[in-house]
Amino acid sequence: MKKQIGYVGLGKMGMSMVLRLKDAKWDVRAYDIIQEARNTAKRKKVAIAKDLRDLVGQLPTPRIIWLMVPSRAEKGEKNPVDQILQEIMPYLSKGDIVIDGGNSLYEETARRAEYLARSGVEFMDTGVSGGPGTVREGKPAIMVGGNKKVFEKLRFLFYDLTQKESIGYMGPAGSGHFVKMIHNGIEYGYMQALAEGFTLLKRAPFELDLQEVARVYSNGSVIESRLTKWLQSGLKKYGEELEEVSGSVGHTGEGEWTVKTGKKFHIPLPVIKAALLFRAQSAKHPSYTGKILSMLRSEFGGHKVSN
Amino acid sequence: MKKQIGYVGLGKMGMSMVLRLKDAKWDVRAYDIIQEARNTAKRKKVAIAKDLRDLVGQLPTPRIIWLMVPSRAEKGEKNPVDQILQEIMPYLSKGDIVIDGGNSLYEETARRAEYLARSGVEFMDTGVSGGPGTVREGKPAIMVGGNKKVFEKLRFLFYDLTQKESIGYMGPAGSGHFVKMIHNGIEYGYMQALAEGFTLLKRAPFELDLQEVARVYSNGSVIESRLTKWLQSGLKKYGEELEEVSGSVGHTGEGEWTVKTGKKFHIPLPVIKAALLFRAQSAKHPSYTGKILSMLRSEFGGHKVSN
Repeated sequence: MKKQIGYVGLGKMGMSMVLRLKDAKWDVRAYDIIQEARNTAKRKKVAIAKDLRDLVGQLPTPRIIWLMVPSRAEKGEKNPVDQILQEIMPYLSKGDIVIDGGNSLYEETARRAEYLARSGVEFMDTGVSGGPGTVREGKPAIMVGGNKKVFEKLRFLFYDLTQKESIGYMGPAGSGHFVKMIHNGIEYGYMQALAEGFTLLKRAPFELDLQEVARVYSNGSVIESRLTKWLQSGLKKYGEELEEVSGSVGHTGEGEWTVKTGKKFHIPLPVIKAALLFRAQSAKHPSYTGKILSMLRSEFGGHKVSN
Repeated sequence: MKKQIGYVGLGKMGMSMVLRLKDAKWDVRAYDIIQEARNTAKRKKVAIAKDLRDLVGQLPTPRIIWLMVPSRAEKGEKNPVDQILQEIMPYLSKGDIVIDGGNSLYEETARRAEYLARSGVEFMDTGVSGGPGTVREGKPAIMVGGNKKVFEKLRFLFYDLTQKESIGYMGPAGSGHFVKMIHNGIEYGYMQALAEGFTLLKRAPFELDLQEVARVYSNGSVIESRLTKWLQSGLKKYGEELEEVSGSVGHTGEGEWTVKTGKKFHIPLPVIKAALLFRAQSAKHPSYTGKILSMLRSEFGGHKVSN
């Protein structure tokens, strides 16, 4: 296969991946439903298609099309992934590959893969973790589900997106998204534990330098992690009071799905559930713990720090 | 000051520190109340004192004595740290330094520092995190509380124990132990979130290779951490079923203290509390989640995997 790919979705993650692949000499054609996103991409010299049909038409067969779009529908709208699939399917041919790099629910992914398979179109799911910065550095974790032979065919693409040890084939359609969903559930727990701890450190009977604490935690301790490092850099950027940072924190669904899946399989998830609940209640009850969480999300995900 | 030090306590952490310092050309004199520990140390060519008085006598003034002993009393016994302090104080002189490297409660540390100060003996608290393996590699995180001038004097010791970025001065007596206590509370939350996630992965509607999942999580993902790496190595060592690993998991006090401190300062710690509760109940309700926790503790701390 040639180093040619179509990208749908030019948000923070999509744009970072497009730029990464362009650096690796890929011929990328891209599209986003939002004019503003298309304009930004154009300024970065990304070749923009005028619509989805045009995008498909610009690619040689077998085509590779990567979707990096919201995995949840706006109220009253159709799910963006389904919407795009419906629109592009008439123009696709047998052997084409569509990759869903977003955070779709694994059960929907399995359904979509089956639906596309009827036309001979391969549907692959890839959970991508690390945030836009990590993508630009070429080391996000990529968890792939779908046909194993297609995964092998796509290795040359993954090798240009990330380091070898960050790529894993997980199993049949939906398994990549399943493993990413659990990843995000764990992430909720990690972040909450860290934020609770730093709230207590902030109210300590000593005047602690929280940035110093985060530095020491980040170098050799049992809790050494990327999150402790982001905590350190965030405290440096926003200051210990986190004045401009919102005490309410967003939750985008994967934590909730993890908790629901736990319930369905009768697996108790007390910590992941408590972390989700905290976020859900944080809109009504903003707190310093919430500020730490918002700050962390901003550090790795580029989410806004204020409401 | 000379590179001479007395060590009391030759458990997993104490022994690792002694060997580390010997590598760095320190003249170490050591003692442990347990004969077996003394014998093991002798086989490793550690110079063993015949009792605490002998240990103190072998050191030049100003002395440096590092305590690495259990921070909690056995039922009906006196606290080991207090017991040792009481025994050695008559032989110490003004300017000597006693360092408590264990996980003592920060309030007791503050009390002890005040008590020793009356005799002109400096009492420093250092929380040490990373586990025995990390100590042997020379990169544990060290959180120091106590007199700042004494901390500066001790830098040459810390520099031989760990890397520069892993050393932090936290503040007055007790602050090192406070920061370590919170560290362990966060650790409880991290571990529990990870263990819950992997329990769900184990029961996934796909046959996942959990070692592969841990590998991908460990390389570039948002939850990349030493714990995800230990999870990977532990699964390799014990197998995915973790058959020989106990489903009940120990808790040694710091998590509990963190929760109590949260209550005292009116800081809600839902996740850390849930993680503690899970451990407390795991004796009666062993589970796969408990097995993951026991396995992780064993990987970084050298704790037994079976009951």
